[in-house]
Amino acid sequence: MTDPTREDYRQGADYARWLDAEDELARFREAFAIADPGLIYLDGNSLGRLPRRTAERLATAVTEEWGRDLIRGWNAGWYQAASRIGDKIGRLVGVGSGQVVAGDSTSVNLYKLVMAALSLRPRRDRVVSDVLNFPSDLYVLQGCIDLLGNRHRLHLVPSADGMTVDLPALLDAIDERTALVTLSHVTFKSGFLHDAAAVTEKARRAGALVLWDLSHSVGVVPIDLDGWGADLAVGCTYKYLNGGPGAPAFLYVSRDLQERARSPIWGWFGQRAPFAFDLDYEPAAGVSRFLAGTPPVLSLTALEPALELTLEAGIERIRGKSVRLTSYLIYLVDMVLAPLGFRLGTPRDAERRGSHVSVRHAEGYRIGQALIEEMQVLPDFREPDNIRLGLAPLYTSFAEVWEAVDRMRRVVTEERYRNYAHERHQVT
Amino acid sequence: MTDPTREDYRQGADYARWLDAEDELARFREAFAIADPGLIYLDGNSLGRLPRRTAERLATAVTEEWGRDLIRGWNAGWYQAASRIGDKIGRLVGVGSGQVVAGDSTSVNLYKLVMAALSLRPRRDRVVSDVLNFPSDLYVLQGCIDLLGNRHRLHLVPSADGMTVDLPALLDAIDERTALVTLSHVTFKSGFLHDAAAVTEKARRAGALVLWDLSHSVGVVPIDLDGWGADLAVGCTYKYLNGGPGAPAFLYVSRDLQERARSPIWGWFGQRAPFAFDLDYEPAAGVSRFLAGTPPVLSLTALEPALELTLEAGIERIRGKSVRLTSYLIYLVDMVLAPLGFRLGTPRDAERRGSHVSVRHAEGYRIGQALIEEMQVLPDFREPDNIRLGLAPLYTSFAEVWEAVDRMRRVVTEERYRNYAHERHQVT
Repeated sequence: MTDPTREDYRQGADYARWLDAEDELARFREAFAIADPGLIYLDGNSLGRLPRRTAERLATAVTEEWGRDLIRGWNAGWYQAASRIGDKIGRLVGVGSGQVVAGDSTSVNLYKLVMAALSLRPRRDRVVSDVLNFPSDLYVLQGCIDLLGNRHRLHLVPSADGMTVDLPALLDAIDERTALVTLSHVTFKSGFLHDAAAVTEKARRAGALVLWDLSHSVGVVPIDLDGWGADLAVGCTYKYLNGGPGAPAFLYVSRDLQERARSPIWGWFGQRAPFAFDLDYEPAAGVSRFLAGTPPVLSLTALEPALELTLEAGIERIRGKSVRLTSYLIYLVDMVLAPLGFRLGTPRDAERRGSHVSVRHAEGYRIGQALIEEMQVLPDFREPDNIRLGLAPLYTSFAEVWEAVDRMRRVVTEERYRNYAHERHQVT
Repeated sequence: MTDPTREDYRQGADYARWLDAEDELARFREAFAIADPGLIYLDGNSLGRLPRRTAERLATAVTEEWGRDLIRGWNAGWYQAASRIGDKIGRLVGVGSGQVVAGDSTSVNLYKLVMAALSLRPRRDRVVSDVLNFPSDLYVLQGCIDLLGNRHRLHLVPSADGMTVDLPALLDAIDERTALVTLSHVTFKSGFLHDAAAVTEKARRAGALVLWDLSHSVGVVPIDLDGWGADLAVGCTYKYLNGGPGAPAFLYVSRDLQERARSPIWGWFGQRAPFAFDLDYEPAAGVSRFLAGTPPVLSLTALEPALELTLEAGIERIRGKSVRLTSYLIYLVDMVLAPLGFRLGTPRDAERRGSHVSVRHAEGYRIGQALIEEMQVLPDFREPDNIRLGLAPLYTSFAEVWEAVDRMRRVVTEERYRNYAHERHQVT
């Protein structure tokens, strides 16, 4: 497929439909429950759509595994779910089995791994991150530093353009004082994609540990934790992995750290023999020691069929379509929206972005409201002026991208955004 | 209703059926999905049965709230779920709204509250618990103490009979060195019910904080955290509350501690304004500051209708039936099973026990296996010799208690347990 040109846009929706006809992943859209085909859903980077098989699988889990099998469900599969599902996630992040477990939230998992990392580097007093990292991650870091007596300094590498982080500046910030480097692989607002291999390599040479938050990249960007030599990672499963609202997160601990790293939360699912009911805690072998309490089985169950869908589609094909979708969107932004006061809030270099694109406008908040209320487009909004458009290759079509841009154009040219207050409502 | 007598037992199952006919809660059994009416399920203290309305509610949540409403589900109810469900749990533990939130696992919640408590009592170096506490709770305590540099001593009050804890000895262990007293309100193995009012009062007089683990009492024993003057509590919802496998746990922080207590995990759901995406953490007002990451919405959704069922039945009526069920079971154990080598592992005083009864036998493990494999009875087993029988007033009938005891009798008199190995399989 060649890059679209101005000529192509003149053909408008026809060209988008041609791109869809050429799309080898198009058939995956049918794997999702699309309740309202008229709605253009561009928030799959926040909450992925419902896979049809998930609804069926969960109904079976509820009526048969819980309702009929009752407590026997534990030995029939629930007890192994955290590791079994973790291994499937492992295939998406480039690691072999026994290094990933699913459970808890991203914040709790991040907390566990940050505490473990800082105790593995007791003589170092710096934590390196950047200003584009998800605030929730920064909160957890601040809490860990506070708990440890404010001995560490959190160094946030700045962003000159509010959109990217300069790689040399980031590498420079990592030195022999650095205990931990922790970054969002893809940043939540601008969709900037870090050069994880380069950052990890520098950290390892400096003797620092590296922890990647994969929440906005897993399932849509190829990840090679083993190849990079990454020590630790966490990630969310309700975005591009389509695991459902608040689906359990995951964590990764490299094999060579597993026997030295300790979770601060000595939970019974991380115990060596949880059902011996010994009074003294002894950590399990391997990554399972980072499990804490009883996992939320129903939410875990909903996650598994969604993961299988992503594995079937294949991460390389997903990434290929993702780049085509975001490139096409950026092309349309330049062509159609830039003259109307919009500007791109996401890197133009496809190698440096994930699968969501931020489009900024001084009236961004009100435009977003108009898109939701009048135009059957569901994006999300991030302060101060980012309309964030998540393109999920498993179900977002090129025709939807074209339509969404056209409706954004109409909201501005028809001044529909004026119907909405500047007042902010809670937007998740 | 008068206590059953030897004469009544001669009437056997007829008497049990009469008790069922007199049972004002009998109709609640129909609210549960009973896939196999022939199965006597006596493990509701480990995993409660599936309420019919839960299956319906969850299907709606999946297909409509997630599948159709997509990200809009957050503003339509998910975002408030932790507090809304927390308030319903609050009604079961004797506190007003705004003091309980649902989410995370019991272990993670316990960790958060123990860390908060120890930092509120920095000059005290003792933690008081007992040897009957759930090992998972002791693990969390050990982990907190380790993390804080082993400055604290964990004092476990012993049990003379392996079944109860002497109240004067427990009260004596609480003094001006005590930072925290934390106990299981009902102990997991023997079902011993602590005198929570007396323990809490002593702790408060000594200036110690008190944290109750309500996992084995909530939904089946009246709880009065406000009346006791308790500071902190956690609890599980997948036992008598029927919230489903691994259902989210809850935590309670008394109103007068809320502004001083801090969670060690600075999660974004505990932030003052999570969607402002400020880079610096500031805790939310009230108990919500103890939330961490995004909650598992599907598992939370499954919990809510189950809670409503318990609220409809009323905790006083539930407790009344629970005492009648356990009294009847103990009567049958004395009459039928004691001559066969069984002995009671649970207090005889109804005021000192919860809703499960442990029956001990030298061949307990193999008897349990025979009950499961041949006799259509599902108890659970706790080392070394406890057959644990959970009686859930919302769906356990007196006739089932009679039948279960009769089948236990047959397993021993017919020596059916000899068909099973001594080898332990994992029993959850």
